[in-house]
Amino acid sequence: MSLQLIEYEQASAEVRAVFDDIMATRRIDRVNNFWKALANHPATLRRTWESLKEVMAPGSLDPLVKELIYVAVSATNNCNYCIGSHSAAARKAGMDDAMLGELLAVVAMANETNRLAIGYQVPLDEAFKDAVLAPAG
Amino acid sequence: MSLQLIEYEQASAEVRAVFDDIMATRRIDRVNNFWKALANHPATLRRTWESLKEVMAPGSLDPLVKELIYVAVSATNNCNYCIGSHSAAARKAGMDDAMLGELLAVVAMANETNRLAIGYQVPLDEAFKDAVLAPAG
Amino acid sequence: MSLQLIEYEQASAEVRAVFDDIMATRRIDRVNNFWKALANHPATLRRTWESLKEVMAPGSLDPLVKELIYVAVSATNNCNYCIGSHSAAARKAGMDDAMLGELLAVVAMANETNRLAIGYQVPLDEAFKDAVLAPAG
Amino acid sequence: MSLQLIEYEQASAEVRAVFDDIMATRRIDRVNNFWKALANHPATLRRTWESLKEVMAPGSLDPLVKELIYVAVSATNNCNYCIGSHSAAARKAGMDDAMLGELLAVVAMANETNRLAIGYQVPLDEAFKDAVLAPAG
Amino acid sequence: MSLQLIEYEQASAEVRAVFDDIMATRRIDRVNNFWKALANHPATLRRTWESLKEVMAPGSLDPLVKELIYVAVSATNNCNYCIGSHSAAARKAGMDDAMLGELLAVVAMANETNRLAIGYQVPLDEAFKDAVLAPAG
Amino acid sequence: MSLQLIEYEQASAEVRAVFDDIMATRRIDRVNNFWKALANHPATLRRTWESLKEVMAPGSLDPLVKELIYVAVSATNNCNYCIGSHSAAARKAGMDDAMLGELLAVVAMANETNRLAIGYQVPLDEAFKDAVLAPAG
Repeated sequence: MSLQLIEYEQASAEVRAVFDDIMATRRIDRVNNFWKALANHPATLRRTWESLKEVMAPGSLDPLVKELIYVAVSATNNCNYCIGSHSAAARKAGMDDAMLGELLAVVAMANETNRLAIGYQVPLDEAFKDAVLAPAG
Repeated sequence: MSLQLIEYEQASAEVRAVFDDIMATRRIDRVNNFWKALANHPATLRRTWESLKEVMAPGSLDPLVKELIYVAVSATNNCNYCIGSHSAAARKAGMDDAMLGELLAVVAMANETNRLAIGYQVPLDEAFKDAVLAPAG
Repeated sequence: MSLQLIEYEQASAEVRAVFDDIMATRRIDRVNNFWKALANHPATLRRTWESLKEVMAPGSLDPLVKELIYVAVSATNNCNYCIGSHSAAARKAGMDDAMLGELLAVVAMANETNRLAIGYQVPLDEAFKDAVLAPAG
Repeated sequence: MSLQLIEYEQASAEVRAVFDDIMATRRIDRVNNFWKALANHPATLRRTWESLKEVMAPGSLDPLVKELIYVAVSATNNCNYCIGSHSAAARKAGMDDAMLGELLAVVAMANETNRLAIGYQVPLDEAFKDAVLAPAG
Repeated sequence: MSLQLIEYEQASAEVRAVFDDIMATRRIDRVNNFWKALANHPATLRRTWESLKEVMAPGSLDPLVKELIYVAVSATNNCNYCIGSHSAAARKAGMDDAMLGELLAVVAMANETNRLAIGYQVPLDEAFKDAVLAPAG
Repeated sequence: MSLQLIEYEQASAEVRAVFDDIMATRRIDRVNNFWKALANHPATLRRTWESLKEVMAPGSLDPLVKELIYVAVSATNNCNYCIGSHSAAARKAGMDDAMLGELLAVVAMANETNRLAIGYQVPLDEAFKDAVLAPAG
């Protein structure tokens, strides 16, 4: 009745095709448990992998910066699996101990000042109102 | 009975000293509302500013990367003030529209896969167990 | 000094009365750990059970839909205990693997688009302003 | 199609009975918007009020401490309505500006160190393992 | 320097193609602000729409149930835009006031019991350990 | 490649100085794992300890109330380490089982009503608008 981690050997052709692409893209010879779990719902496996491959590709931000952002979100959300897997990915992409220390210091500080701004209900300065979307005319 | 945004003119010497340091460090001529709100509790104002100045200083991560991480946490926590103020700071530090687009795409993707890992209760791979702290011997 | 899981045999009459009602309502012969933990504070045990019994009873939404919603919230909040216990309850109420797969896909997608809407600070469309409460006249 | 804030004059007898009890218990002459909104679903109105009345009554913790805890949770969750209403309640129960300043400093600090403990994945000390529930024998 | 809501008339061919598909799929004649905001980063617009279309399509769960789950997550995360837009979508798919009342009651209850399970650190019952993934052999 | 819990014997002079101050301030003879983890990034160790020492010192709120608030935030955020360590600290400061039961009841209730206020999008009463910061003039 329960789900299982789907190993390559047990996997359907549809799942294997995704596993093959993960391994080829990342130059590794086995996929990690996250993908084996998603393989229980092949549509989610395929869609998630295709999205992640696109989002994490080098662009205006380089892969290391993207992995640091991933760890920042995962630590804020308390996702142990994701902290582990993306810290490992960040290490591979060049994160050293000093960078990890600074990353977590910024994450923690942001979580602190977020609550100060929220708790004091600080009104947004005019100067910041167009930092993301311009206010409607 | 309620608190107010403390303007420089009304501020105590203790608060003015912090405001002066913020303006000198950031090369601006007025502090933003966040600091005016914290000025209602001078110990919090001073401590928060000193911590922020230290944490956000250039180090192994450069100031732009630190601001991107700040926005990532603030968007995850839904702190509108912090999204506005740190997006503005990130713009100053060099973030362009393409970088903002990629940043939010990674933040959103991380929030998505965090819940897939949590919802499926995916067990951590052995290979990731020492990505942060080594397991106790 | 610390609390314990309170077993039926050790329980006070007040706690046993709640345990009896849980077992009778759910047609089971022992209560799960959540209730044994709450039994350390009998007022919380009684109030929580009475509320849960009322909220989860069949109504305009059927029990399966209510359990799916419970799992959705628990996965978003990262409550492992609640994911486990309410996934089990959802299974009993008829959730199969395909439904679980779709449920987690929706939960993850919602967590993703929540952060896109927040990060871009998208203003609410006029057309949606009365979707919940009508705006004050 | 949308819901409305239900005023006393429009309310059903069932809703009025709850409104009357809120006003009598709190010695006020009108209920705040939260209750007017819940009145759209009378079962939720009644149940929520009865639970809140019980939980917030003086006990081992006094009402001021309970209101401070309420503000702490609401600031962490970013619930503006709840920060406003429970800060007002805390003021009534005796919270002054210095207490509010210390409250928000502790809330912010806890949000910061929560992420340091999570980000570093710090293993729980043996000495803390029975701080809440004793580990199973 | 700031982003804008991109209207159809200003949009690139790439963005218009996505807008056209949203309007055709949903049988509406203009897209809501969420999509106009994402249009600032066309890759995110296209990817998010394709994912959402796939995830929210009828399957083992019907579209109303999926919208209810979306509202549940959005209320838990405090995303006002998403509560508004998905409550409107749920109304269209058949949600009436009684269903909305029950939905929010379940969401609130789940948020409550999540913190009781977490605060008491309740250990997972053996019987629930295979509710999602089977434990590794 | 991975970090370790830094024991006093291995620690640098800079780290030892902080450990010594923690032990002296708290009148204990060894620091808990949180500090041993932070010792991997000495600047974070020092800054976090100095902030915590200042924030948690007796003031307008007494140390027990501050520890209760810490547990409230930690339970809301689902930080197991912090629930354990601050529940232990609260016990030391005088929290008994009845107080813990009431604390968790308030935390859970606040998490529930936060989502009711958010889900119904309840507009803030005029009377609460100056509970924290006075609205701009």
